[in-house]
Amino acid sequence: MKKLLLLALIPICSNAQNLVRYVKPIIGTQKMGHTYPGATVPFGAVQLSPDTDTIPYEKNGKYNGEVYRYCAGYQYDDKTIVGFSHTHFSGTGHSDLGDFLVMPTVGQLQMNPGTASNPKTGFRSAFSHQNETAQAGYYKVKLDDDNILAELTASTRVGMHRYAFPESKESHIILDLMHGIYNYPDKNTWTYVRVVNDTLITGYRQTHGWARTRTVYFAMAFSKPFKSYGQKNFETKQAYRGFWRKFNQDDNFPEIAGKQIRMHFDFETGTNEKVMVKFALSPVSQTNALENMRAEIPHWDFDRVKSQAQAAWENELSKVTIDAPEDDKINFYTALYHTFLGPTVYQDVNGQYKGLDQEVHTASGFTNYTTFSLWDTYRALHPWFNIVQPKRNADMVQSMLAHYSQSTLKMLPIWSHYANDNWCMSGYHAVSVIADAIVKGVYKGDVRKALEASVATANKRNYEGIGFYTDKGYIPSEKSGISVSNTLEYAYDDWAIAQLAKKQGDEKTAAEFLKRSGHWKNQFNPETRFMQERLDNGSFKANADVMATHGQGFIEGNSWNYSFFVPHDPDALATAMGGKKKFRQRLDELFSMHLPDAFFAETEDITREGIIGGYVHGNEPAHHVPYLYNWTDTPWKTQAQVRKILKMQYQNAPDGLGGNDDCGQMSAWYLFSALGFYPVAPGSDSYSLGSPFVKSAQIKLENGKVFFVEAVNQSDRNVYVKKVLLDGKPVQNLQIKHADITAGSKLVFYMTNKP
Amino acid sequence: MKKLLLLALIPICSNAQNLVRYVKPIIGTQKMGHTYPGATVPFGAVQLSPDTDTIPYEKNGKYNGEVYRYCAGYQYDDKTIVGFSHTHFSGTGHSDLGDFLVMPTVGQLQMNPGTASNPKTGFRSAFSHQNETAQAGYYKVKLDDDNILAELTASTRVGMHRYAFPESKESHIILDLMHGIYNYPDKNTWTYVRVVNDTLITGYRQTHGWARTRTVYFAMAFSKPFKSYGQKNFETKQAYRGFWRKFNQDDNFPEIAGKQIRMHFDFETGTNEKVMVKFALSPVSQTNALENMRAEIPHWDFDRVKSQAQAAWENELSKVTIDAPEDDKINFYTALYHTFLGPTVYQDVNGQYKGLDQEVHTASGFTNYTTFSLWDTYRALHPWFNIVQPKRNADMVQSMLAHYSQSTLKMLPIWSHYANDNWCMSGYHAVSVIADAIVKGVYKGDVRKALEASVATANKRNYEGIGFYTDKGYIPSEKSGISVSNTLEYAYDDWAIAQLAKKQGDEKTAAEFLKRSGHWKNQFNPETRFMQERLDNGSFKANADVMATHGQGFIEGNSWNYSFFVPHDPDALATAMGGKKKFRQRLDELFSMHLPDAFFAETEDITREGIIGGYVHGNEPAHHVPYLYNWTDTPWKTQAQVRKILKMQYQNAPDGLGGNDDCGQMSAWYLFSALGFYPVAPGSDSYSLGSPFVKSAQIKLENGKVFFVEAVNQSDRNVYVKKVLLDGKPVQNLQIKHADITAGSKLVFYMTNKP
Repeated sequence: MKKLLLLALIPICSNAQNLVRYVKPIIGTQKMGHTYPGATVPFGAVQLSPDTDTIPYEKNGKYNGEVYRYCAGYQYDDKTIVGFSHTHFSGTGHSDLGDFLVMPTVGQLQMNPGTASNPKTGFRSAFSHQNETAQAGYYKVKLDDDNILAELTASTRVGMHRYAFPESKESHIILDLMHGIYNYPDKNTWTYVRVVNDTLITGYRQTHGWARTRTVYFAMAFSKPFKSYGQKNFETKQAYRGFWRKFNQDDNFPEIAGKQIRMHFDFETGTNEKVMVKFALSPVSQTNALENMRAEIPHWDFDRVKSQAQAAWENELSKVTIDAPEDDKINFYTALYHTFLGPTVYQDVNGQYKGLDQEVHTASGFTNYTTFSLWDTYRALHPWFNIVQPKRNADMVQSMLAHYSQSTLKMLPIWSHYANDNWCMSGYHAVSVIADAIVKGVYKGDVRKALEASVATANKRNYEGIGFYTDKGYIPSEKSGISVSNTLEYAYDDWAIAQLAKKQGDEKTAAEFLKRSGHWKNQFNPETRFMQERLDNGSFKANADVMATHGQGFIEGNSWNYSFFVPHDPDALATAMGGKKKFRQRLDELFSMHLPDAFFAETEDITREGIIGGYVHGNEPAHHVPYLYNWTDTPWKTQAQVRKILKMQYQNAPDGLGGNDDCGQMSAWYLFSALGFYPVAPGSDSYSLGSPFVKSAQIKLENGKVFFVEAVNQSDRNVYVKKVLLDGKPVQNLQIKHADITAGSKLVFYMTNKP
Repeated sequence: MKKLLLLALIPICSNAQNLVRYVKPIIGTQKMGHTYPGATVPFGAVQLSPDTDTIPYEKNGKYNGEVYRYCAGYQYDDKTIVGFSHTHFSGTGHSDLGDFLVMPTVGQLQMNPGTASNPKTGFRSAFSHQNETAQAGYYKVKLDDDNILAELTASTRVGMHRYAFPESKESHIILDLMHGIYNYPDKNTWTYVRVVNDTLITGYRQTHGWARTRTVYFAMAFSKPFKSYGQKNFETKQAYRGFWRKFNQDDNFPEIAGKQIRMHFDFETGTNEKVMVKFALSPVSQTNALENMRAEIPHWDFDRVKSQAQAAWENELSKVTIDAPEDDKINFYTALYHTFLGPTVYQDVNGQYKGLDQEVHTASGFTNYTTFSLWDTYRALHPWFNIVQPKRNADMVQSMLAHYSQSTLKMLPIWSHYANDNWCMSGYHAVSVIADAIVKGVYKGDVRKALEASVATANKRNYEGIGFYTDKGYIPSEKSGISVSNTLEYAYDDWAIAQLAKKQGDEKTAAEFLKRSGHWKNQFNPETRFMQERLDNGSFKANADVMATHGQGFIEGNSWNYSFFVPHDPDALATAMGGKKKFRQRLDELFSMHLPDAFFAETEDITREGIIGGYVHGNEPAHHVPYLYNWTDTPWKTQAQVRKILKMQYQNAPDGLGGNDDCGQMSAWYLFSALGFYPVAPGSDSYSLGSPFVKSAQIKLENGKVFFVEAVNQSDRNVYVKKVLLDGKPVQNLQIKHADITAGSKLVFYMTNKP
């Protein structure tokens, strides 16, 4: 099952490092990783990637579980490619996007995608991984049905395609405007296309799905004029046509509109003739999409765009250089790549973007970003950005504050993308991202507004039990199916707000939220010493099952894992559990218990490989837990567990990720841990030490300084840390501070094979 | 059936004339007139008017003929009002709009409109015409069910409502976002609303209907904060909700989206307490709608807005002052009012508008207009504008040229509204409007582009038989069901283009289109001397029925009427018919024949009252025909017929219009004819003389001059004209020129009771 991928040498100019060659976008595309193998640039708005099937969200009026596997549009085990669409999430557990699927074909025109088992019945094509290449910023595959070589690359807002056709009088490029990921019934609200001339079309696509009100505008240019074109409208009930019936809108008619549209563009091609497409996106207008295209790719030199994309990747990746075995470098740089896929740029070159209020805004003094999968990413991804992408993270904070300004509910984003909040998951973790960025001196904008927005969000009484939480100190189980998760997460978020308030000298607010941050205690059952559901009358709910992941008041987790969720005060948690020794014993039991098969049957988003004992690495609530041994008498166990997780959960293989990459969160966990430290409680300026696997590393900071990590006597067996020196002095409390990093210090671990 | 309306004296400031009191918007609201009685300002974007029923476009999957009566949303015979919506066409035969229906109610909340037979089952209300007032710029009615007095007025982009409620703790204002005129299944594409605070909401409504891709943005302000509010989503199949299910979106939830939405806003009111609403529209954005509101009505003084609306009307109406019997003044000023209802302003105060390409444009140096019902309005409405609204007409021409620039088909509008062409009717009459405006020196913009656009449109080979028309000289009947109408209309349109080309010194184009303007001869059967369908092989189709309005190659007409459609060359037509005497005999027969009842059964848009002999005044193709006697030896018959039509077809009564007002065309015919002259062939600078019914008239021109008309010895019996003097000299050829009008000449008719 686990295959080692050959290290393909990709020559890149005169850059001695050539880190791009270590990036394998194919990692995580098999099973649960939910990553996509296609072409994108760092934080780019376009993710041009192959979709290997079209799965409807419903089957016979019911939810179709198959759709989950296609969150990124691609599953490694599939044998056909339907086409290449321009927008994808990386590593989510629910989905959207998949806009504007493009597919080259030859021969008789087919306007349906066909099926996986019989690709020749439609425009999709069989393919083989042997003829497929996925690199950072570049993707290539041979489409076997029609013997077409497809290559993809991208700039920030434009996807570029290069198709080498065989000789034919019947070559086509299909544009499927119906296609999407998580295609709910009636998801396509409206589609509009103008054929401007024989090399340019513009238009937009409007959908109602995970993003409730979403429109994506586009401009599509062809390197060669099409000789003819057409559309097919697949609406089952023909909407009012009026006098549009005067026209044959199916053939060479330049003004198209409807709900379910596919188009085709027809060419004659010579042997190996290359036809290229530039496909630009905009959140605002067709005019802006065209402007984006002209600004970013004002030519038809595909190789130049590919070079620029890979140079952009090289530039980002080289912020962190490591000395480690080659295979580990593949895991490391692929993880680093995954952390730079999002949030994504969500504005045009002219600064305009679509706001939460569905109005056009202009980003002034910041770049607007979207896709904030905050329940996942507040934990390690945004803290990672505070070290290696501080400018971008500051802009992301600004983007969240803009969202808040545009929100009628007066809330920061919960889980937002493409000008919509979709309210997914629990907590209100935007406050953690904001607090962390301000406490660490990364965000220097309107910090007063940042505190106001955080407090307003945390005081949204009628949202998800916040009123009960603030009044009673916990959420009664009668009021919410995820009451415990929410109480615990609010408590941590409130602690982050307290840090933010303290930093601004607002002692009153700091005290208020510090008090709230202790509410986790109200969900802690002192008899069982587990976090449990609690009734409105104050009693803990009877017959709690601390292993079950459903029906116990938790989201994506169970009590065993969640009972450790007090990242802001592990000492107090340890006390509650009976002291450091008992705390340690609890951790031991977590990491060594044996789980029954039934556990996996009922739990989403993870594989058996994603679990160590009962510790579920594939689900985020446990991400800080391996580091909790640092608050016991056996910190060496943190080192052991961390090294174990690094080895097991991240493999250089298509199924090498132990769970959804979750918009980079899983990868960020990896990177921190590989370097030997982890932000257990973002909002704090501390990082908890673990056990690096690199021999050494250098992080080039945006302030010009370099932070060094070195692991003396590093090896696979030497997972334990004898001592740690920071600029020659022993580290205190198994922690370093953010200031240590930004000062460009040198952190040296002395490794050994004994605890 | 015909009731005389009492002349209500409306005191208006110190204006001695007080012409507004002669305007009776109720005229034409019964039967076929299809006018609306509500409030609007001259050429205003808002037409705030009561809708008396909600008729679905389909019933049991088939077209529901009832919907036709509700083109303007209102039918005089109805006994209930559903509510007041903000956009209406005046006098069309097909429809759209009816956006944003608002209705005040008291008591238990009802979110359905109820039925006409049982209004108390829903939010609609019974009413009586006795308690209804309709004036230019103002409408008032008592809603009987809940005893609420409703008043409406408007500015250009904002509708203002004033509701006097009884005492109640359960007063409501309903906002029906589902409602529309000609509500096709799935017409509502998407609706979005933000509740900004307790006195302001914004949002938009998107529909797919007669306008294929249409969005209207709004801002709605309340003079008093609502105490609560809510929505109800009427979608039969609940679209994907995702985590929106976390919220109770029905009550006091400020971010609403979906396809079929109604909202309610709740108040407590004291006895006779007035609650007001300002409702602004924009084609572009919510922000612009709000800006429009603040610019046009920055206060809550309803009476001031009403005064300003009526002052605006007084200002426009006073461009033409007449001396005539009071009842005739009512007809005249109501007709004048009807000609100033459209085309309507289609841009925001900041100049932005939505273009045909669905992009935002800024109108620079002109005001952008919409609703070009060109098949109707090129005949007399736009020529009327060239006299009394030259600045506006120049802007309308500019708006059409912008449409052309934004069109992928490279065509001028055929029948366009709200950033869409809906392609209704025949011909390409925009060229006539443009030619007429340029020949008369009204449009002074890019005349070269105007010619280019006209030629491009006339050369659109694959549109509606133009290719056949240009190649063969006529459209074969096998290719089109309205081949004869189109050939005749194209021939006239081409003559207009020739005038336009000649004016610019482009002799080559002028010659080309002059040649095409003779193609009407190819549809003229020399044997029967009627215009008839002709086969591809050149033979005229056998068994033509010159009375039938269907299946004979005509649209909205029959051969009897259409055979006179050579407005640009009546002399040649007369020759073809056998000479002036035969021509006159044909006209005689037209005006005196008796039509069988079957004729009415199969013909739309007209009533028996709308017909004289076989002459169908209710359908436009015949509008120039009464004046054709001027090309015979008996011009006095023109005078007789015109006076007869004026008397019969236009009455001071709700059913006083003999057919659809057709966006002001019927009214424009009336006005010209009342003043004694008519533009038989727009594109020519000539007006054919008729028989005025006024005693005298003054037209105040925009160039500062005044054009005078006088009818000496005027009376109902003195319909014949003994002689006509222009500035004291006898008129030649029964014509005056446009230059005579703009010079501020004096035209005097000497009337007599003998031919």
